Formats: sequence, structure tokens, C-alpha cells
Amino acid sequence: MSVMAPAVDKKLTGLVAATFTPFTLQGEINLSEIGPYIDYLKEKQGVNSIFVNGTTGESMSLSVAERKILAEEWCQKAKGKMDQVVVQVGCMSLKDSQELARHAAQIGADGIAVIAPSFFKPDTAVLARDVLEDIEKRIPSFRGVKFSGSDLMDFGQCVSYSQSHWSVLYGMDEQLLAALAMGAHGAVGSTYNYVARHVNELISAFEKGDIVQARTIQFKMQELLGYAKKIGFDLGVNKQLMIEVSGLCLGPPRLPLMPCPHAHAVSIAQKYHSIFPELN
Amino acid sequence: MSVMAPAVDKKLTGLVAATFTPFTLQGEINLSEIGPYIDYLKEKQGVNSIFVNGTTGESMSLSVAERKILAEEWCQKAKGKMDQVVVQVGCMSLKDSQELARHAAQIGADGIAVIAPSFFKPDTAVLARDVLEDIEKRIPSFRGVKFSGSDLMDFGQCVSYSQSHWSVLYGMDEQLLAALAMGAHGAVGSTYNYVARHVNELISAFEKGDIVQARTIQFKMQELLGYAKKIGFDLGVNKQLMIEVSGLCLGPPRLPLMPCPHAHAVSIAQKYHSIFPELN
Amino acid sequence: MSVMAPAVDKKLTGLVAATFTPFTLQGEINLSEIGPYIDYLKEKQGVNSIFVNGTTGESMSLSVAERKILAEEWCQKAKGKMDQVVVQVGCMSLKDSQELARHAAQIGADGIAVIAPSFFKPDTAVLARDVLEDIEKRIPSFRGVKFSGSDLMDFGQCVSYSQSHWSVLYGMDEQLLAALAMGAHGAVGSTYNYVARHVNELISAFEKGDIVQARTIQFKMQELLGYAKKIGFDLGVNKQLMIEVSGLCLGPPRLPLMPCPHAHAVSIAQKYHSIFPELN
Amino acid sequence: MSVMAPAVDKKLTGLVAATFTPFTLQGEINLSEIGPYIDYLKEKQGVNSIFVNGTTGESMSLSVAERKILAEEWCQKAKGKMDQVVVQVGCMSLKDSQELARHAAQIGADGIAVIAPSFFKPDTAVLARDVLEDIEKRIPSFRGVKFSGSDLMDFGQCVSYSQSHWSVLYGMDEQLLAALAMGAHGAVGSTYNYVARHVNELISAFEKGDIVQARTIQFKMQELLGYAKKIGFDLGVNKQLMIEVSGLCLGPPRLPLMPCPHAHAVSIAQKYHSIFPELN
Repeated sequence: MSVMAPAVDKKLTGLVAATFTPFTLQGEINLSEIGPYIDYLKEKQGVNSIFVNGTTGESMSLSVAERKILAEEWCQKAKGKMDQVVVQVGCMSLKDSQELARHAAQIGADGIAVIAPSFFKPDTAVLARDVLEDIEKRIPSFRGVKFSGSDLMDFGQCVSYSQSHWSVLYGMDEQLLAALAMGAHGAVGSTYNYVARHVNELISAFEKGDIVQARTIQFKMQELLGYAKKIGFDLGVNKQLMIEVSGLCLGPPRLPLMPCPHAHAVSIAQKYHSIFPELN
Repeated sequence: MSVMAPAVDKKLTGLVAATFTPFTLQGEINLSEIGPYIDYLKEKQGVNSIFVNGTTGESMSLSVAERKILAEEWCQKAKGKMDQVVVQVGCMSLKDSQELARHAAQIGADGIAVIAPSFFKPDTAVLARDVLEDIEKRIPSFRGVKFSGSDLMDFGQCVSYSQSHWSVLYGMDEQLLAALAMGAHGAVGSTYNYVARHVNELISAFEKGDIVQARTIQFKMQELLGYAKKIGFDLGVNKQLMIEVSGLCLGPPRLPLMPCPHAHAVSIAQKYHSIFPELN
Repeated sequence: MSVMAPAVDKKLTGLVAATFTPFTLQGEINLSEIGPYIDYLKEKQGVNSIFVNGTTGESMSLSVAERKILAEEWCQKAKGKMDQVVVQVGCMSLKDSQELARHAAQIGADGIAVIAPSFFKPDTAVLARDVLEDIEKRIPSFRGVKFSGSDLMDFGQCVSYSQSHWSVLYGMDEQLLAALAMGAHGAVGSTYNYVARHVNELISAFEKGDIVQARTIQFKMQELLGYAKKIGFDLGVNKQLMIEVSGLCLGPPRLPLMPCPHAHAVSIAQKYHSIFPELN
Repeated sequence: MSVMAPAVDKKLTGLVAATFTPFTLQGEINLSEIGPYIDYLKEKQGVNSIFVNGTTGESMSLSVAERKILAEEWCQKAKGKMDQVVVQVGCMSLKDSQELARHAAQIGADGIAVIAPSFFKPDTAVLARDVLEDIEKRIPSFRGVKFSGSDLMDFGQCVSYSQSHWSVLYGMDEQLLAALAMGAHGAVGSTYNYVARHVNELISAFEKGDIVQARTIQFKMQELLGYAKKIGFDLGVNKQLMIEVSGLCLGPPRLPLMPCPHAHAVSIAQKYHSIFPELN
């Protein structure tokens, strides 16, 4: 779960693509690909909001300085094209997070999100809904939550508890339909980089009450992800699939993540094209 | 996950109550309460099918002889009242399971279900959908699956793969609505002993396309179960809640399960009545 | 952890082999191999005590009737040859365990051991030492504990707390030397079926203060088990290794355990013979 | 597991205290306490080597800049007093780790250690011994490993594989004796901040072959830590215990760690003094 606070007051709904960080082949951040990336998301995938420097963006493998440069570039290039840019500012060190939060405000991010530190963790499982109750009292600008677990009782209680101006977004792309039934207002995910076009149709079908059509699209996504998971679907593979589908030059992931073996990339991309054939 | 094979050909749908085993205060099985139990389920809860000797029935704490006696009594008393009685025959010992399966056929159970042995387990996670593919080839009488995990991608792939005469039932009562969206044909669970009346309304609302009403009922169940989980909601507490709500004499659970502390039982029962007030 | 209570008063020390259950190729229990098995353990491995119907003996895959027949045969054939026969009587059902405990007393077992039920489990980790404190008060005939975890702080506290007539035995064969340093009185394990000869030397070296020699033997065992674990070392493989080393006809394991692939068995047996060359 | 590479060639043995980071009450790093801290370790605890900016030092909650300042201060104040100062340079971001490693070399650290990134992790368990084989080929200056797991088979295989100029150090203070039996060359741990004096005696006893005396001291440490664990023994409590025992002003831990409740601190400190009474 990450929590979000926007700088301005726009409720975040619909699909939010969690962006990959473009690297050069030498492993340095590659700012020149960010403009084309945003155009691809908007024009080919129908995506209107992005979530940058999150797990998909390998933020934990970036230095604080790199995160600032990236956040700035995403915000600049998104201007006039994206509805909202949410910058993830969570770090292992609270000091670093605070610095990144201030920076995000300065560069005009529409909102920030914070993934909790994972090195030192609470001993016991905490219910998301209890966290909301606590946050609400302490962060007046709090505007939403991205929930990434499979426990839809906990998720349902977040939805049920949430105030009308909050966004309760879901983060497990492979079971979004279930979360929509439970009342999700939108979704943040890495697969929306390359299947948002189809998932937008899923959402429309659900909203029109055509559950059978929504289910059909969800099952297609599950078929793709199920296939990928059997081969081994980590962030490196995920990024490579985006490269194959979009034609963007996003480069390899950074260590400790490993690049995707070529044969895997080809095989998953073929599956993608067989499930989601290109329209003419 | 448990897999099911019916003796006769009726597709199992709707709510299936996973029954508790009635014990005397001395811890012996109490056959005399089974008749009233069935009447309660049918008349007060609108339940038409039961799943006996499962985890809820503490089958692992019963001897093979006790399981036979119980199965027989449930089948006899259910005659003319329940649509289907499914007898769970899984044991740690395959020999014992085979014996119980033969016995279930003799006593006229409508179907059997098998929970896989849990002492020796496969090393790696297995996808339910892959299990179905395998079972289908080997068990011609196979008719369905009860899926009890929260991974709704795996569940969705079961639904998507299933044949028209199979039942794909869901087993996490607290998020049934999500599974209905994903295509569940029905549900097996312990809470249907005491909230089936309300969950039948949830299912009706979902089928009529009234997702908001379905969600409202699901959130009520989540509120009840969330409350119970904070106090500590194991099988002993679950059984006690059924006793409080139904007035049946089901006795304490057997060791190693512990009986529910009285204060917990009272507190959860009060919550139940505040969420689901009795109609006059 | 399993707890033990002997019928007569002999402190259990040294190596205790946790025996495999001999099956025919058809999967039925094979009593005729039990006599030769005991002779092998005594004469070739220098083992003087056995632990029967434990996990290694696949007790959870046996019916209650089969366990009685086996226990009786082990006790009869061990008479005059083994110092102690400990019969494991733990079952998922407490009733079954009580029946097996009574039976073990009737047939003259030297002691019983009880593995706790694993289907319904305590929610939180329990310290072995706290369990001992509790058992001591309630079971006057209590005589020892087999500790099978890698947490040697918990183990050390058991040793430190134990009374002089108790046996605190260790169950992770691959790190026995560590447990001896911490004060173990002996060990129960499945590898003692085929490496007890060497491990007896490890114990002697440790007792003489020759830690370097003890370590050398422990490292050899670790090399064998490390090799086996990389290939995949489950109970089926373990049993097959015993068959290869001893020449006994123990048959395949019972489902849900799978028999060891032939190539694995050959490869591990070769490793065994290269690490522990046969003396002439 | 963390791996270590020293700048100069001194084999690291004996006890290495993993230091806490001193903070002011306002949560800023407190350099003025580092000198007295080193004197305390040397004079009162007989510690000759320290491991700074590790988990105990909350390195993950420090910024890169803070880690540099701290490393420099520890190295300066330790000059002429400590045999070795090992600076832990592992970060989530490889770039940051490289920067800290270069810095450690510049400031004259005796060695560096690297804890692997924990945010993105390998899918499967990796054997420490296999890691050593790999590292050996790639890092000529590699000099040792700190092993912090309870799996003493894996640890034994590290010892057995290690070259004569490597240090194989153990990191679970509560079972050090077991690791000594398995061949550990020394130990790195947080409790050596306040019990090194006693653990040095444990090591001496072990080296003289007096296993009973070594065990007696180990059991005392286990009694202390067992007591602390029942109350709740996280890094905050651990730090507070050091404060109580040493009288140093180390301040509270940083968020997300919580300070130790006062009653817990008092209770554990009393236990400490009852187990290890002050000598006059």
C-alpha cells in the first residue's frame, strides 16, 4: 500500500500507468526517452495519468539525485498531456523521503505517493483500513491510497471507509475486475503501460453492467500474465515486454535486477500479439 | 482447493454451508443435533446444500469411524430437505480417503470432495488451473472445484477453463462479490451457516446488476468478520458464533482447537446482531 | 518437536535411527523386511535405538490399523537387539493418538513419542522450553524431547532447563555437532539409517575433545546432504538412498510422496560412496 | 549474509561489535558520543573491532551524506584504539554503495562490508557457500563473510570451503557456541556492545576445551535474550539496553523504528544485572 497526497485538488480515477525508468545501455538514466514515452501512453494506450519513481521505475535502485532529475523531466514532458503526474517519494531513509517530497512540490507534481520503508517493518500485519483512519487525522492533504494486496476484504473496508474526495486505487492488474466489483475508483499498475487500451474497455464494460464482456477482457489479461509467470515474470521481463510492444528504448533494468533473456522476451511478446491482435 | 465428484448429475450452485460437527460437552459426536441443524439451515438461512466433514467440521480431529457415522447421519437427515450433500473424504492417509469415498457412495451422498493431504506437500506452488487440466483427464466423474485462496487470477483461470457442467465454487466468504465478478458459480463456506440469508440477497442483487446493493451487503459481512478477526477469529470462535446465532447445541470444538472465550463470543454476537438486525 | 514418555526407565542417549516403513512394490506394508532392517542397523551401523512410525516412516500416510501392526513387528523383532524402541503415536485425531498410545504400552514399546497435530496449529510460535515447563507438570512419565528446529537458542534453553533423567535429543542431522556443543544428549534422525557408523565417530571425537576430527566428519555429512539437496532431497530420495546403501528392499514411498527418479538415486549413492568409502 | 573486503591485510577474528548510531534527542546524528562509545567498548567490554553503519546502526534510515560523516568519525576516533573498523556500505542503490565504498577507502577504513539489497531480491534461496565460490573469482580483495542465519549446515560449508586468509564470522549472538563448534573464526553482533566481556570468556573456555564453562555462559546470554524476546526485542529495545548498561547517550532510534517503552527497558536491564552481576 502506498498513500497519496496531491498538490492540487483533482480526484484521481481511471488507469494510472506505473512507468518504467528509461536507462541507456550503460545503465545511466535516459531522459530523452521520456517525451516519446508519454506520447506513447497517451496516444496508443489512452492513459491520462502516470505514477513515476515507484517500484516499476526501480526507484530503490536510483540515487536521490537521479530521482529528482527524473521527477522533473516526467512533470515537464507531461505538461498539457497528462491529467496527473504522481511522484513516489518513499525511501528507506525518512530524511531522503522528506527531501523528495519537498522537491516534488517545487516542480509542480500533481501529487506524491509514499511506499513505506521495507527494511525495518512492523512485526504484525496491519490493516489498510486502520492505517487510513490514522492518516486521515494527521495528513489533511491526504487524498487516496493505492492498495496492492490480494486481500479484498481489507480493500473493501478501505473503500467502505473512504471519504468522497479520496481515490481508492487497486494495484494487482490481474484481478482488477474483482476490485471494481468491490468499489475501486481506478487502478495503478505496470501492465497499463501496454494493455491500458484493453483495460479501458474492461472498465467501460463494467460500468455499463456488461460483466460478461468485462470478464472476457480480464481473462485475456490473465492468460497473458499466467503465461508470463510460468516463464518467469519479474520486473526485467516486464520492462522488456513493454519495449517489445511499444518500440521505446527503455534499456535494461539496473542491478540487482537482471535483464530479460531474449528467448523469454520473444515468447511473451508473441503471446501478447496472439491475445491482443493489432487493429488496423 | 478441494476437488469434487458427484454421484449423480446435478450442477452445484448457490450457497453451500460447510457444517460444524456437533459434539456433546464431553467431546463425543452428537448425532441428535444434526436434524435440527439441517432444519435451521433450510428454514432460517435458505441454504439448500451442505458440505460435511470438511475443515469447518474438524474432520482432521475425527477418527475414520466417526466420519462414517457422521456422513451417514447428515445424508439421512438431509433427505428431502437439501438439494445436495457433499461429503469431504480427504485424509492424511490415502487408504483412509479411499475407504471414506467408497462409504460415501454406499450411503448415497450426492458428491464427495477431497482436500489434499497437508502433511507431505508439494514443494512449489501449483496453479489450480493446471490441476484441473490434469484431473479432467483422469477423473471422468469430476464435477467441480472449491477454490479457497485469495489469488483471483488463478481463480479466474479456473472459471475460464471450466466446462459447462462443472461447478467452480469460491471459499473466501469475505470477498465472495469479487469472485462472482470473476465468474464463480456458487460458494462453500462456514459463515453461510449464519449469514446465508443475507448472502443470498447479495447474489440476487449481483445477478440483477445491482452492484451497489451487492457491495453494501458484502461490506456488512466484512465489517462483522473484520471485527471478529481483530478479537481473534479461529474455528472455535466461528463455531461459538453459530451457536449464539442459531441456538443449536453444537458443543465445544475438539482439541487441539480451543473453545471460544465467553467474552469474545458475546462481543461478536452483539456485533452480528447490530449489523444484521432480526426482522420481525 | 515431539515429546516422549518411556514405559520403563532407561535414559535415551546416542543415535536413534528414525526408520523408514518397508512397503511392497504394490504399496502394502512389508513386515518381512523389518527383521533384516534391524540387523542391518545394529551390525552395519552400530545403531542401538529406533524411532518407528515417525515422519520418516510416513506415519501420516498409514491407517491406524497399519500403524499398530508395524509397531508390533518392530517391537518383536527388536527384542534382544535394540536398547530402545520408541513408537511415535501422534495423529491428526487425538482419539487415534490415544488408541495408539494404549496399544504401544500393550506391546511393550520402551517409549512413545508424539508429534503434535499439524492441521490445526497454534497461531504464534511457541518456545520449546515453555512447552517443557507445561508438560512437566502434567505428564509425570515424561522423559524427553526430540527437537528438530535450527533455533539453537530455543534448544539451548531446553537443555539448560531439563532435568537429569530427561533426554534432550536433536533432530537436524546436518548440524548435530552444533547441538552437541549446546549440550544435546543424543540425536534422532533419518540419516542415521545409513551414516550412524560415521556419526558415532563424530560423537566420540567430540566427547574426547577432538573438535577438529568431529568437525571433519560433520563437514562430510554436510557435503553429502548439500549435494542431495541441490538435486532435490525429499523423503522419497532419502528412502532410495537407504535402499542403495543398505541393499534392503524398502519399496517406494506412498503417495502423495513420489518415488525417487533413478538417475538421482544413482548420483547421490555415488556421492555417498565417494565421501564414505567402504572399509575392507 | 554480508561480504567483506579489507583495505589492508589483517585477518578479522574474535568479537566485533556492530555499533548503534548515536542520535540526539531531536533525531540528528550525534558525533560527540562516538569517542566515549569506543572507549567504553575497549575498556569495559574488551572489544577490539567494530562494524559500523550496519543494520544495528540503522544505516537504512540514514542518508548517504550522514553515512559518510559517521564512517569518518568512527575511523578517526578508533585510531590507535581498535584493531579494525569495518564500514558497511550496502544500500538499496548500487550507485550509492559504490560511492560509499570509495569513500571508505579514502578515510582509511580497515575494511568494508556489503549487505545485499533487500528490496529486489532473488526468487530462490541461495546457498552462502555458492555465493563464496562466485565472489572469490570476481573480488580478489575478498576477505570474509558475516553469516547471520541459523542454518549451520550452510555455515559449516562456508567454513569448510573458506581459504586460510578469510574470516568466517557468525552473526547470531544467541547461538555463537554452536558456530564455534562448526569452526567460526569470530563473530559480529549487536549484543557484543554490552556482553562482549562475558562472551570473550566463552570463547576462551571453548578454545581451552572447557565446553561446560562455555555452555554456561552461552546459556546465560540465552536467558537474557529469551527474556527480552518475550517482552519484545527489536532494535529500539536493543539500543535502550545498551544505553542502560553503558550509560552512553545514544538517543532514540529513528522512525520507522519506535523507541523502547520505559518499563521494558527497566525490566530487561534488571534481568541483565541479575544474570551478569557487576564485579568490583
